[in-house]
Amino acid sequence: MNAEEYLKKSSEEIDPAIRSYIEDEEPMRLIDASRQYPYAGGKRMRPAMVMAACGAVGGNKKDAVPLAVAVEYIHNFTLIHDDVMDGDDRRRGMLTIHVAYDEPTAILAGDALFAKAFQIIAEMDVPDKTMRLALKYVTKAVWDLARGQEYDVTNEGKLITEAQYLETVRLKTSVLFAAAACGGAAVGGADDKQLKALEGYADALGMGFQMYDDYLGVAGDTAKTGKSVGNDIRKGKCTLMVTYTLENLEDKKVLEEFKGILGNPNASEEAVRRAEEIMESVGAVEYNRRRAVEEIAKAKSCITCFKNSDEKEFMIALADFAIDRDV
Amino acid sequence: MNAEEYLKKSSEEIDPAIRSYIEDEEPMRLIDASRQYPYAGGKRMRPAMVMAACGAVGGNKKDAVPLAVAVEYIHNFTLIHDDVMDGDDRRRGMLTIHVAYDEPTAILAGDALFAKAFQIIAEMDVPDKTMRLALKYVTKAVWDLARGQEYDVTNEGKLITEAQYLETVRLKTSVLFAAAACGGAAVGGADDKQLKALEGYADALGMGFQMYDDYLGVAGDTAKTGKSVGNDIRKGKCTLMVTYTLENLEDKKVLEEFKGILGNPNASEEAVRRAEEIMESVGAVEYNRRRAVEEIAKAKSCITCFKNSDEKEFMIALADFAIDRDV
Repeated sequence: MNAEEYLKKSSEEIDPAIRSYIEDEEPMRLIDASRQYPYAGGKRMRPAMVMAACGAVGGNKKDAVPLAVAVEYIHNFTLIHDDVMDGDDRRRGMLTIHVAYDEPTAILAGDALFAKAFQIIAEMDVPDKTMRLALKYVTKAVWDLARGQEYDVTNEGKLITEAQYLETVRLKTSVLFAAAACGGAAVGGADDKQLKALEGYADALGMGFQMYDDYLGVAGDTAKTGKSVGNDIRKGKCTLMVTYTLENLEDKKVLEEFKGILGNPNASEEAVRRAEEIMESVGAVEYNRRRAVEEIAKAKSCITCFKNSDEKEFMIALADFAIDRDV
Repeated sequence: MNAEEYLKKSSEEIDPAIRSYIEDEEPMRLIDASRQYPYAGGKRMRPAMVMAACGAVGGNKKDAVPLAVAVEYIHNFTLIHDDVMDGDDRRRGMLTIHVAYDEPTAILAGDALFAKAFQIIAEMDVPDKTMRLALKYVTKAVWDLARGQEYDVTNEGKLITEAQYLETVRLKTSVLFAAAACGGAAVGGADDKQLKALEGYADALGMGFQMYDDYLGVAGDTAKTGKSVGNDIRKGKCTLMVTYTLENLEDKKVLEEFKGILGNPNASEEAVRRAEEIMESVGAVEYNRRRAVEEIAKAKSCITCFKNSDEKEFMIALADFAIDRDV
């Protein structure tokens, strides 16, 4: 089974649960708002990771369903709040919550999903000790997610270093992947060595995924990615390609030219192509791709110790998928 | 010891802990923002309630310190988000977080405090089962707080019923008091009967406290309360006095006159006094005061079953204080 097939199958298992935890209750406006993102679907990568990690360590995947739902709610809570902060009007074609409802309701819908996630964890039908371990992973992740988003907000429009880029991606993407994997494995009865291995896997997978996403933003096919070419350039998004270019381009004149295009919302198509050409010429695009490939190799190497299973196969396939996709 | 003395003593115990859980970490801007409210002090009623409930059921109050901190962080997280939603510039003389920093940082500082509260609970040095019980109380309270704030936001400027008023106060005030009391008691090893009793106590105390606050807004001495007379009237705040007046005033003409003043930000001093006179004449001010007194009596009756202790004495004194203050 490839990663997409597995995700689809896993979604079918998890979607009814995702739609079952938020009961009708007053004020319904808040309940409706909090349901919008989680009920709308999506790749469901994080819940699939919870379930797969549970299965990979020999646990009963059914036990991990509540945690999978909780992790998805947390992911969605952060999306709702991020959309408020970024002032985005749409997500996956839907109106964002602060646009469809209002800003206070969006903030509260995020808070409510956050609270519900921890209510679900508190009620999990697993031993108290196991619940506590899963709780620790998830709480740490949410703390780190807030740190990562604060970096994103304060660094917007600024030129950052590669180290800052890596730390932001770790906080914004890897930590919740890791909480999903380790939390699911904890529910499955994992030992410390397995938890450590899964943390390494998920951390590297998150890094590789985001790096490849950035790469697709420049090297990808617009018709497939749906991202307009040069969108990241015009926004001044500091990807690994950009930080590499800033740190390795020796020709000061070309460097100034590059900085002049980066983050200019009105940059012409020609200027954007020129910026890409500069990144290409200094080897930044290839560097970005290679770093993504390296992270994925690292992710896979972390879980070689696991016994063969459908779940391990999925985790490897998911890693491969991260750098073998055009969307 | 009266309630204020007990609160002061309890603050001295709990304040160093409140200031110890948020370590220096990057990005410091977020850390700073998240520290502002909890570090600034305040009455610390909720943490005092956690500690007192733990002691009242025979527990070791030191065990309850982390939960007391967590509950205070949760209270502060809701204040930060409420201030964003209400667009308030100041709180207790300080600039609000979204003004002193920026709105995204305020949203994130709230989220971060929320996450930290649950991290602290996850790490509590109590049996897993006890931790889980405290966690359940707190998560339920946060869910309800979001519901209460959504009512507040959507009902702003609207005329609501007494039942709606009571439900909003329960959700916005009583549920966190109850989580503090029951969570603290759980840490102290309370049995089900004690938990039930404390839930009743805290619930009624929260109701009485808020009702008396509203009463002071009209009947209180402005010089002491710091609230300008008629502020609640001009804002159209639906207190128990207002809902009683709306539901019991038979003279339609006077009712229309009353509605015309309520929520009019430009109402003259004379008009505000007229609105108060109308509430007074229909018996609404006295009704509000009496309902507060009844809630406090109910609160105290809930804990008669507890053995005498300093903590029980404080809980009774706190209840008495709720309706015997001018601030």
